[in-house]
Amino acid sequence: MKRIAVLTSGGDAPGMNACIRSVVLTALHFGYQVYGFRHGYNGLVDNEIELLTMQQVRHIIQKGGTLLKSARCSKFKTESGIKLAAKHLDAAEIDALIVIGGDGSLRGMMHLSKYWQGQLIGIPGTIDNDLSGSDNTIGFQTATETVIDAIDKLRDTADAFERIFMVEVMGRDAGFIALSSGIASGAEQIIYPEGLKDIHQELDCIIQHVESARKLHGRSSYIIVISENLWPGGAYDLSQVLTEQIGIECRPVILGHIQRGGCPNGFDRILATKLGVFAVEAIKNGHSLMMVGEISNELTLTAISDCVNNKKPVDKKLSDIQAKVFDSVEILSNCTKSTI
Amino acid sequence: MKRIAVLTSGGDAPGMNACIRSVVLTALHFGYQVYGFRHGYNGLVDNEIELLTMQQVRHIIQKGGTLLKSARCSKFKTESGIKLAAKHLDAAEIDALIVIGGDGSLRGMMHLSKYWQGQLIGIPGTIDNDLSGSDNTIGFQTATETVIDAIDKLRDTADAFERIFMVEVMGRDAGFIALSSGIASGAEQIIYPEGLKDIHQELDCIIQHVESARKLHGRSSYIIVISENLWPGGAYDLSQVLTEQIGIECRPVILGHIQRGGCPNGFDRILATKLGVFAVEAIKNGHSLMMVGEISNELTLTAISDCVNNKKPVDKKLSDIQAKVFDSVEILSNCTKSTI
Amino acid sequence: MKRIAVLTSGGDAPGMNACIRSVVLTALHFGYQVYGFRHGYNGLVDNEIELLTMQQVRHIIQKGGTLLKSARCSKFKTESGIKLAAKHLDAAEIDALIVIGGDGSLRGMMHLSKYWQGQLIGIPGTIDNDLSGSDNTIGFQTATETVIDAIDKLRDTADAFERIFMVEVMGRDAGFIALSSGIASGAEQIIYPEGLKDIHQELDCIIQHVESARKLHGRSSYIIVISENLWPGGAYDLSQVLTEQIGIECRPVILGHIQRGGCPNGFDRILATKLGVFAVEAIKNGHSLMMVGEISNELTLTAISDCVNNKKPVDKKLSDIQAKVFDSVEILSNCTKSTI
Amino acid sequence: MKRIAVLTSGGDAPGMNACIRSVVLTALHFGYQVYGFRHGYNGLVDNEIELLTMQQVRHIIQKGGTLLKSARCSKFKTESGIKLAAKHLDAAEIDALIVIGGDGSLRGMMHLSKYWQGQLIGIPGTIDNDLSGSDNTIGFQTATETVIDAIDKLRDTADAFERIFMVEVMGRDAGFIALSSGIASGAEQIIYPEGLKDIHQELDCIIQHVESARKLHGRSSYIIVISENLWPGGAYDLSQVLTEQIGIECRPVILGHIQRGGCPNGFDRILATKLGVFAVEAIKNGHSLMMVGEISNELTLTAISDCVNNKKPVDKKLSDIQAKVFDSVEILSNCTKSTI
Repeated sequence: MKRIAVLTSGGDAPGMNACIRSVVLTALHFGYQVYGFRHGYNGLVDNEIELLTMQQVRHIIQKGGTLLKSARCSKFKTESGIKLAAKHLDAAEIDALIVIGGDGSLRGMMHLSKYWQGQLIGIPGTIDNDLSGSDNTIGFQTATETVIDAIDKLRDTADAFERIFMVEVMGRDAGFIALSSGIASGAEQIIYPEGLKDIHQELDCIIQHVESARKLHGRSSYIIVISENLWPGGAYDLSQVLTEQIGIECRPVILGHIQRGGCPNGFDRILATKLGVFAVEAIKNGHSLMMVGEISNELTLTAISDCVNNKKPVDKKLSDIQAKVFDSVEILSNCTKSTI
Repeated sequence: MKRIAVLTSGGDAPGMNACIRSVVLTALHFGYQVYGFRHGYNGLVDNEIELLTMQQVRHIIQKGGTLLKSARCSKFKTESGIKLAAKHLDAAEIDALIVIGGDGSLRGMMHLSKYWQGQLIGIPGTIDNDLSGSDNTIGFQTATETVIDAIDKLRDTADAFERIFMVEVMGRDAGFIALSSGIASGAEQIIYPEGLKDIHQELDCIIQHVESARKLHGRSSYIIVISENLWPGGAYDLSQVLTEQIGIECRPVILGHIQRGGCPNGFDRILATKLGVFAVEAIKNGHSLMMVGEISNELTLTAISDCVNNKKPVDKKLSDIQAKVFDSVEILSNCTKSTI
Repeated sequence: MKRIAVLTSGGDAPGMNACIRSVVLTALHFGYQVYGFRHGYNGLVDNEIELLTMQQVRHIIQKGGTLLKSARCSKFKTESGIKLAAKHLDAAEIDALIVIGGDGSLRGMMHLSKYWQGQLIGIPGTIDNDLSGSDNTIGFQTATETVIDAIDKLRDTADAFERIFMVEVMGRDAGFIALSSGIASGAEQIIYPEGLKDIHQELDCIIQHVESARKLHGRSSYIIVISENLWPGGAYDLSQVLTEQIGIECRPVILGHIQRGGCPNGFDRILATKLGVFAVEAIKNGHSLMMVGEISNELTLTAISDCVNNKKPVDKKLSDIQAKVFDSVEILSNCTKSTI
Repeated sequence: MKRIAVLTSGGDAPGMNACIRSVVLTALHFGYQVYGFRHGYNGLVDNEIELLTMQQVRHIIQKGGTLLKSARCSKFKTESGIKLAAKHLDAAEIDALIVIGGDGSLRGMMHLSKYWQGQLIGIPGTIDNDLSGSDNTIGFQTATETVIDAIDKLRDTADAFERIFMVEVMGRDAGFIALSSGIASGAEQIIYPEGLKDIHQELDCIIQHVESARKLHGRSSYIIVISENLWPGGAYDLSQVLTEQIGIECRPVILGHIQRGGCPNGFDRILATKLGVFAVEAIKNGHSLMMVGEISNELTLTAISDCVNNKKPVDKKLSDIQAKVFDSVEILSNCTKSTI
């Protein structure tokens, strides 16, 4: 009988609990024992381990957060930390470890594999969706809905006051949340890393877009969605720059960690459930150092090294729709921005 | 310059407004004029036509319902009705007609094609998701989220009172909503057409499942999700049968038309936007009698006749997970139900 | 040091957990020990008792349901059952018992007082709002919001299809949920017990209202909110009667137990918190057989016998607004219905 | 036949549309003509007037924003601007003007009364709830629910990561939103103007509170709700100060204008409906320079001068519960902060 362990690591994402539940139920189905480590990789280093039972995962599919807690772990980046982790895994006679997390968590698995011989399977869990090897990562769709809900609320007050808002959303270095939430909320402008060469060079274009819209529609609400980490000081400072240049107040809204919380939506619960089942099946089938994913509706295994090394592009159909179709109608812009 | 028209037909679905917006903006982008017919095919027969402008579709992407209204249309099933429709389309010099709707709406296009020479492009819009030619139809994901939200609420009161509930959901003759919402809400049992041979023969199995769960978990909440149209009298009558046979009250909840309403979620807004753009591009490219769709992340064109004649299967991964993995753990059932 | 106990009884209501939390924290603040009985009065009879700690009530303020579970209890209606309950309370040396529940739960306290000498304090917890002694009962505002949210969704599809819906809502024998949710959702007609003498005699008036609206507005959505228990067979049967008499399909929607679940809204969390604090203070001050409540913004104590014997009227301002102001404009009805 | 006009002014608030609807329907009920001015007082100065009909206000009760738009108006602060406004009101033969807005809007009415002889009735519409003369202003309860919903989401991720968050909420110079949302979300600390003498002097106490909680509960989520305008640089800068002093990262979340948007909840729709009816009745009864309100469940008229000059206190029961009851249990703080 195999003994498997599971942990959640890095930025938490809605659906992690649904995934833990799926891993536990599937493991029990195969007759395995299943353990949880708490606080991400810290739990390995500090040996925070507990047996997981069917009772513990009842009715958690809809819960935000993660019952195993998550954390960053600096100790795991040292050789002594990793060796301690490997020692604890061996002491508990764990055959296989499942890690639910993002880019950094997957890299952690690669490091661990140098010091520990057990099977290692990754499950993509991050709201940023910035992992190759799965069309969607667990939490991305829920976070996007949270952003959309917030922008819908902003639209009401923006319309009432005919105001300009700049909404900063998460995504680390990727524009998935910005692009999807921007399209879905009918945002007038979307600024995201894949759509720009250099935001400082393209500032004129950003401003020109606002001014063209004002010319076309008169006073009217105008919402800009912008990814984090694109401008020094973020939306707070950039909105200030815009306010000065266009002479109309542009107000910033920074959604922050709200995007990580809340009940996972159905999409993420189902994705998390499928990937949890498939991860345990992958262990049963002897795989290691692979990440499970869903690509074009098929459950897939991709080498973890490929997942972290290849940059996943945003959906070109979406970026084209925004840049080429809607803009040309709505704004009639002949903006020189590189790709959008 | 082309003149295109659009209408929404059959049961309305969240995202229809987002799709109308997308069709209008894309048509304007290509320099086309775009008209709307109101009340589904009735608008063709009764010549309820209006010019659609950019202003009319501003800020409707998030709105439920359909600004063009929808309806069933019995007149359109007669030869005289269709001829009148064709006459009105010709009188307005419409080159191409886009119909957003479900199975019946697509069949209507096939009939119309016998009497009218213009291009006909279908867009799948129905909460039931029962159309081949697209992995998701517009509205399905939102309806599923609405059901999940309702079951989450029921779970609270079911847990507090340790009660058994039977939730009837829509889907016409397909189990997409039942299966997805059941999995995502952690329902203890899911009864849907593709998972059964004959519900009357399998009634013992349904009952045995409830009883096994009570043995395993003691008194506890237990939620059954069931598709409409499976039992005479629906969940009202079937829950009565169960109540009598297991000696514990099983209460019915029939969600009904709530499932058709509400703001479309982000998924449906994006899908509706993509399909609306692609439908107008299909017209530009000279296609006719095709339905646009998205299959495995690719935008596709499928002959309408194929869409209505081929039955789309539910996701086998989901049905297997529910029947084989989770049940065996949670219920230890050796139930003889045909497929689940 | 006092030892107090708490239980939740009868139909569960959103906010019960917030109230338990408040009772526990306040009791600990005063240095009391606090125990919970599970499954309502059954817990007294069956001696299901547990110590409650600060840790157990952390982060439950937002949770639906009740961690102490609830239930009806037939054994408590027998003399032997009550005597057993009293014996268990004495065995645990409980000085005071707090019961969170509705009408039946308060009556249970009156019965218990004949066999047990400890202090008894009631807290009004029921979605029906049908208790004198508090303007709002815990759960009423949340349930009303749930109904409003459902009707908002129905409005979308009703508008799209220009349909007539009849929505049945809870309330036992009182019209609070129907009247509030009907006004707040702009329902075209609201049928509730306090607004009628005899629904069978006033059926013509109900029908005439629908027909007047159709004359005034043409085809249009029309939503009727109706309280449960007003017509044999409920909204299912009454909508059938209407369909036949007006010749236009009137579709029923029965919301059922969804109304009991879900996260409590802020209003109910705050009310539950205040009443929980005040209930423990009432114990500290030596009160017994009183129900805490909030009337005109003041925290109040009312004899339990008065709470159950006096019928609380619906807000006359609301019933007048609906019947006299809006109807006269919208429908121009000279309906002869008794009070509305 | 009277001619009345209505406008919405100042910061928009959810429920303003419900209130406009109520004013229009009631006015029509009394046989009055009713006009709307757009963009707040700008509409008076610029004569942006339109007739309002029953059709225009159908199905807007649930919509956020305001169909009459809102705005600040600097021109209205000049004598020439006000005289122009009075001239336009007279030209349209308006007998009475209803203004829905906050503190500044009411002051505007007092200025206008010096130059215009018609009746002036105010309706309290602001999320800040900082107006004497009504227990609740339109929009306050909805905004509070929006904040609670955001903090519930934050709690998930705060728990998963055991993090400290500081959430800045609106309220101008009043703590209503902070106190209500803080209590309802179980926030560990609430910082609001009425609860402090001087935030700089009490900084040690704020920090000590966080540290006491860490001692009591170990690593754990900890959420601080803070009103805007209390610290230079707001929550961004204050959280930085805390981070440095306690040596644990405290992350800021600034909710911003999201708090103004969204569908009004049932409470605000009902309040807006009642106040709209009562405002028109007040006009019918010849009142002027009064604000309608609801105090202790009674509809009331208060002189506008009293509404703007008297500061409304926060609910002492709530501030006491937070400061005296819960804190003493949870944190065992003997903090020297003045009032909390």
